[in-house]
Formats: sequence, structure tokens, C-alpha cells
Amino acid sequence: MMRRADPSLDYFFRPRTVALIGASSKPGKIGHESLRSLLMTGYLGKVYPVNPRAGEILGLKTYPSLLDVPDEVDLAVITLPAPSVVDAMKDCLKKGVKAVVIISGGFGEAGSEGKRMEREVVRLAKEGGIRIIGPNCIGVFDGYSMVDTSFQPHERMGRPGPGVVAFLSQSGTFGATFLDWAAEDHLGVSKMVSLGNRADVDEADLISYFAGDPKTHVIGVYVESFTRGRELMEAVRNAGKPVVVYKASRTEKGSLAAVSHTGRMVAKHEVASSALRQAGALLVDSFGELYAAVKALAKQPAMKGGGVVMVTNGAGPCVMAADELVMRRVPIAQLSEDTKEELRGSLPPYVLVGDFVIDLTGSANTSDYLNALEVLAKSEEVGLLGVFVVFQDSPLEDDFAEVLSRFDAAGKPLLVFAAGGRYTRDKRSLLEEAGIPTYDDVREFASASLALWWWGSHERQGALGV
Amino acid sequence: MMRRADPSLDYFFRPRTVALIGASSKPGKIGHESLRSLLMTGYLGKVYPVNPRAGEILGLKTYPSLLDVPDEVDLAVITLPAPSVVDAMKDCLKKGVKAVVIISGGFGEAGSEGKRMEREVVRLAKEGGIRIIGPNCIGVFDGYSMVDTSFQPHERMGRPGPGVVAFLSQSGTFGATFLDWAAEDHLGVSKMVSLGNRADVDEADLISYFAGDPKTHVIGVYVESFTRGRELMEAVRNAGKPVVVYKASRTEKGSLAAVSHTGRMVAKHEVASSALRQAGALLVDSFGELYAAVKALAKQPAMKGGGVVMVTNGAGPCVMAADELVMRRVPIAQLSEDTKEELRGSLPPYVLVGDFVIDLTGSANTSDYLNALEVLAKSEEVGLLGVFVVFQDSPLEDDFAEVLSRFDAAGKPLLVFAAGGRYTRDKRSLLEEAGIPTYDDVREFASASLALWWWGSHERQGALGV
Repeated sequence: MMRRADPSLDYFFRPRTVALIGASSKPGKIGHESLRSLLMTGYLGKVYPVNPRAGEILGLKTYPSLLDVPDEVDLAVITLPAPSVVDAMKDCLKKGVKAVVIISGGFGEAGSEGKRMEREVVRLAKEGGIRIIGPNCIGVFDGYSMVDTSFQPHERMGRPGPGVVAFLSQSGTFGATFLDWAAEDHLGVSKMVSLGNRADVDEADLISYFAGDPKTHVIGVYVESFTRGRELMEAVRNAGKPVVVYKASRTEKGSLAAVSHTGRMVAKHEVASSALRQAGALLVDSFGELYAAVKALAKQPAMKGGGVVMVTNGAGPCVMAADELVMRRVPIAQLSEDTKEELRGSLPPYVLVGDFVIDLTGSANTSDYLNALEVLAKSEEVGLLGVFVVFQDSPLEDDFAEVLSRFDAAGKPLLVFAAGGRYTRDKRSLLEEAGIPTYDDVREFASASLALWWWGSHERQGALGV
Repeated sequence: MMRRADPSLDYFFRPRTVALIGASSKPGKIGHESLRSLLMTGYLGKVYPVNPRAGEILGLKTYPSLLDVPDEVDLAVITLPAPSVVDAMKDCLKKGVKAVVIISGGFGEAGSEGKRMEREVVRLAKEGGIRIIGPNCIGVFDGYSMVDTSFQPHERMGRPGPGVVAFLSQSGTFGATFLDWAAEDHLGVSKMVSLGNRADVDEADLISYFAGDPKTHVIGVYVESFTRGRELMEAVRNAGKPVVVYKASRTEKGSLAAVSHTGRMVAKHEVASSALRQAGALLVDSFGELYAAVKALAKQPAMKGGGVVMVTNGAGPCVMAADELVMRRVPIAQLSEDTKEELRGSLPPYVLVGDFVIDLTGSANTSDYLNALEVLAKSEEVGLLGVFVVFQDSPLEDDFAEVLSRFDAAGKPLLVFAAGGRYTRDKRSLLEEAGIPTYDDVREFASASLALWWWGSHERQGALGV
């Protein structure tokens, strides 16, 4: 069941106009760099810098006040110091702004005076029917409208193209890492939101919104705590799309609470995890595993049955992978004697044909891989093709990645594991560009497999949470 | 207590002459690429290719048989197909070869005929007093003599420079990944050995040997199983140097044993792990964590007391890090009020000074980091400086990595966490070159911290295994 998205959130992602309040002419300042992102990333709407002094910034005429902007303003981005934000909000009310991203910190996270200001900002927003993302965040990125409020310059952080992943992060840092990694991995993104202090818009709002967004097929979530548990669970339950969550702050120390009651946060974490799982989310154990899972779900079909098989020219990582798959309860293939016989018939005699690992050995070349994969892709025991490659091994042809990227896996998911330096990274990049997710950490490969298996079970059952 | 190294193993690492039996003129063939590594990596001894047909390979005169080589041969590297290796070994006996690396597969791992050949090879070696590494491996690398038998060409895999880390791996794949990563991270290596089938030389032999090697200060071990448990434990107990182990094959599936008794391997793994731990090794949970720990031990001093503190311009990963440190029982700092007061006095008012996280916020610049680190480096509550950096954030100056690399941490270990794309990787590389280990996976940061804390406890107690 899909819910209608809250239309008030549209203004964050598809505003006709954006004003940047606190625009600065000084490179390196947040009010300069966020403006630069709005201009450079590709947003095609109108952008109005607001600054009481500068006449022009980055070639754009600036306005002394928001009220001087000669246009309606859908989205205001505020980078002013916290004490000036309340006045800026008052201007937003007068101007009839629909949505506000507050990048600035110095609010709830900074003590009692900050908390007071945050409450005042929220009160004003409610009064004006304005939605707020932040404060204390990097804001929003939209892979289609190319709205981009982040203050990380293009020279330092990549921007992904359009695609099916929506990502929301309580941490701006992990939001930036996500965008940077997604850009390198050719992972298309529909939306990224850095939640910050969540004075208004929270993870429950956004999961519901992403659920109703036809561009979004996969939802990734990094959180340390929840604001509204019941609404969050309902949002997850009704999402109708894979929701993968990594929740940090599992321990008391992790909660950063200095004086606290031992064990309290741990218990809370376990309760929260269990509720999320029951609501139908997939919980994973690290930010890297979250990214790995989301990437797999975005680029590959789910597992339709069967188990994971591994084809390799160097079996060490397959041993570790088998352990990690077992720990995550992902089914591992048990090849039938018929399949093994067929494999032996099409491969050199020294190949080790195991129950779920085909070790082509360091002598493997491209056609060995293809011959093995062709047999496995049509075997009903196989649900996922794990291609473990030592690109460094010289008997393997230099064009293996190109050839593999054209392999027809007959509707089965295919993931690649390869760990090494620059040469290996270049080959991985080529595969990523062709839509094949790659991993250099076995636990991330296992997390990706888990996600495809988990989502496949949901699809087979035709419902969530069963 | 340090034991004398077995001198018979010296011939693997400091041979005066090397013969390559199975040298091939065809690029991409293992017998060609191993020869190329011997020539290209920098080994200065004599290299004799043996090939019954080719007259010259890579500019070197070849010899039809080992017996035609007009010189003594310390080390023979064999890349022939398995069925020809027994005859080659007979030649090695006649020639008085001291040590043999058998790269070729097709032995014990390949079935009963392979096992028979392996036994015959070992019998011959014992008869001639020859030590064997392999078969089914990539052989040895020595960062000082630059002996390098691996068949991964330089264009595809980096070679590290000389240094203090000795690494041994049952898996050639992880051996190759280790060399590739170490080269990129400017991590100096004394020796790398790919153990393969361990027909003769095993992990116990090599840990004892590395213990007696003055160039080696840190020993990293990847294994899936042990050959001689008692000898291994004794070698670890007497090493007198940090020995960090990642043991895969934790589950039945992981053991790759198709038809087996559920739980048997798991139990074995637990027994083995516990024995290793009691012998004084540090056990970690993934190959990435093993590499992370070894890199930290090689580049930084151990923790002398106190706890981990984190300084950051983006606190999300610090939350995850606190969790992961707690899970590994690494002490986290509890800053005193005096230290916090001093920090507040030297930092902007919006900085969040916590008990163990100093959040400089996204507005941080280089001097904020330095001011915080200077106070922390001299605080007795602090045992390890965790510097968490969002290099992407524009307020941070472009030369932060350069400045940080010159920071005097007053004898305390300093580790950097930073996750992102190319820009971030370039900054990390600069820090690595300056001897500061960097991580983009929080669990690897935590593993590195654990290693420095663990080894610091050993040093404080002045003994192993206490």
C-alpha cells in the first residue's frame, strides 16, 4: 500500500525559486559554498542571494533582505549565525516562503539558549505553515531537480546523477560521504536529506514522502535516535519499498550522553531495532554495510530463490564470505551433481568445483569465468552470482571487466568482490558504471547479498513484514 | 624472549641466486610474470630462467635444465604444471638448492592424485634438506632484498617499500591485496609470505622466524586453519612482538567442507581463537580490521594509558566509533573539567566540548583542530588522538592534511578517520606518507585503536600473555 506523499515537502525538492539567506562573497564560508552548490550542481530554478552588504556574489545580484526579492520564494536556505535565524524566519513568514533549510548550527545541540532559539524558530514555522529541515545539517540534494544546498564544493565532493536511491541521514558527515561515494560508483540518487536536529521534518515524514515518490525505489536511513517511534514504524510498514537502516548509538558511550544510566541506551537500541525489523525494515551493522545494501538494491534485481554461489580466481575471500553469509542467515547454494558435472565439462580440469565455490584458480581467464557463470546463471540452485576477482592476477585478460559487464545473468543478481589498489579500483569503476555493484570488504558484500535476499523474500511473499 | 630464527628460511628472503623453473616467454603466463617480478621489483641477486626451449626471456639467457645453470642456486621458484614438479624437485636435490617456492596449484587441494604428488615433493625436499613454501601460492616478497615471486604485474599491483610489517597469508589473494594496499598507504613491509598448501613451511615456522628478524616489528597473520597448533601457540607466546591474527573459516560453510558435521568447525574455531588469545595474539574480525591494526602498530606508538578522544568537524562517525570501541573494550577518555575548561578557552564558543568528543562543527578550520589537539595531547586522560575529518567541508583549509602531518602528538598515537571520494583519498594518502594511518571504515578505526591499546597493555606489563 502506498501513501500519498506530503505535498508540503515538495518545496524542498522541486522549488521554483530558492533564496539563500546569509549568502557570503568569501570562498570557504558556508554561505558562499552553499550558494555555489545551488549554482554549480545544475538546479535550473531562480536563485536569490540575500546579503545586506554585497552587491553581487558569484555573478548574481544580491538583495539586502528577503523581502526585497522581486519574486515568490519557495525554498529559503539559511546559513546565518543562530542568533540571526529567528529574524530571518520572521522574514520568511512575511514573504510566504514554503520551506526552509537551516544549515546553521548553534541550536538544540548547543545548550539551553540554543534550545530556546530552536523552539522559537519552530513556533514561527508552524505559525506560517512552513516546513523546516535542520537546523545543523547540510540540507538537501535532489538528483533530478539538482537542488543542492550542501556546502561541500565540487572540487572536494562528487555529486551523483539521477537514480532510484533516496538517502536520509541524521549525520551531515555520512550524508556527504554518501553523495561522494555514490558519485564515484555511478549510483543514481533521487534525493538525499541531512536531517540535523530535526526541529520539524524527521525520518518518519521523509520515509512516507519517499514512499510516495515514484522516482525512489530504495530508501537508506542513517539514524542515531528516533523522534516519533510510532509514526516511523507506520511509515516503514507502509513504504512498499525496501527500507534499509543503520542505527548507531548502540551503547551508552555511543549515545554521547556523558552522565547517563548504564545500559539504558543499549536497551533502547534493542527495542528500537526490534520494532523497526517488525515493521519490515532491514537493519544492518555499519554505515559501510548500509551503503553496500542500498547500492545492491538499486543496481540489481532481488534474489528470487536459491542460494549464493561464488566464482573466483582466488578463494580466500570466499571463505570469509561464507562465514559472513552464514552469520546473516543468507542461503548459500548447494549445487546439484548435475550442475557440478556440467561445470566440470565446460572448465579446465584443474578447476575446483565445490558445493558453492567454483575456484578457477589463479590461472583463470575471462572465458573460464564466462563458462562457469553461464552454467550457474541457469541453475535453479543459484539465486545470486558472487563474482570474486583478483584483477591483479596476470593470466586474467585486461578486458575482463568490460566482458563481465555485458554478461547476461538471466535475471539473477550479480555482485563483484575485488580488493586492491588503483588498477582494481579502475576496474570496479567500470563495472559500477555498467550497473554491477562492487565491494572490497567482504562484510559489505555479505550485507549486499542479505539485502537482495531479504527483499526477494518480501517480493515472493507479496507483502511486507510477513 | 626472542628465539633465534631458523636459518634455513633465510634462503627464501635473502637468496644470492634465484632460478625460475618454468619460465615462459609469453606475457600473462605465471612463469613469465613471476620472472618479471623478480626482475622488476628490485632484487639485485642473479636470476636464472629455466626453460627447455626458449633461448632468451626478458633479455635473460635461459637454461634448458636447472642442472645447466652455471652457478649455485639458493632459491628455486617453480611454476610448472603439477605433474612436472616432482622431476623439478629431483633436479633441485641434485643441484643443492636450499629453498623452493612452488607457485603451481594442482596438489593437495585438487584431490587424491594431487595429494600423492605433494607427499612425494615433500619427501624429496626432506631428503635434500630443502625447505618449501607452497605449493599453490604467490610465494614471497621481501621489502629489503626485494625478492618478489608474485605473478601480479606492477601495472596491476603495487609493491611496498621496506618497513617493519611481516605479513603471512594462507590466501594468496589476501596476500596480493595486502601488498597492493600497503604500497598505496606507504606502509613499509619487511616480508610477505603466501603460505598456500603449507606442504612444509607453515605459520608456526614463520612467526618464529619473523620474531627473530630484527627488521620486523609487527606480525600480521591471515589463516583459515592451523597445521601444528602447539608449535603455533609457542611461536606466538615467544614472539616478543605484536602478532595480530584474523582467522576465517568460522562456520561450517566457511570451512568449505561440503559434507560435514554441523558445529564442528565452529567449535574448532572457538577453541583455536581462545588458545591464540591466551598465547598473546590479538584476534580481529575481518581482513580489513587485520590490515587496519597492523598499519596502526607499524606507524604509531602504542597507547600508554588514558582513553581514546575524538576531535571532529562532523560527529556522526564518532557516534559509531564510540559504539565500536565499547564493543572491543577499548577505553574511551573521560576528560576532566580542567581539560574541558582549557579546550573551551582555546576554541570558538560554538564548539561542543564533550566528555570524549570535541565537535568543532562544520565551520572548523585548521587552527581549531590544532588548538584542540594541543590541549588533548598533553592531557593525561587522553591515550589516543582520533582525528575525524570531513575533508569535503569547505571551511577547512586545503592544507589541513599537510599541517596535521607535522603535528607533534607528544608520543601519543594519532589516527585519522575520513570517508569520501578522490579528494579525500588524496588527503589520506598524504597523511599516510607522513606516517599517520587513516581509515574510512569506523570498524577499522576501532580495530586500529584496539591494537594500539592492546599492545600498550603488553608493554606496560612488560610481558606477554598476562
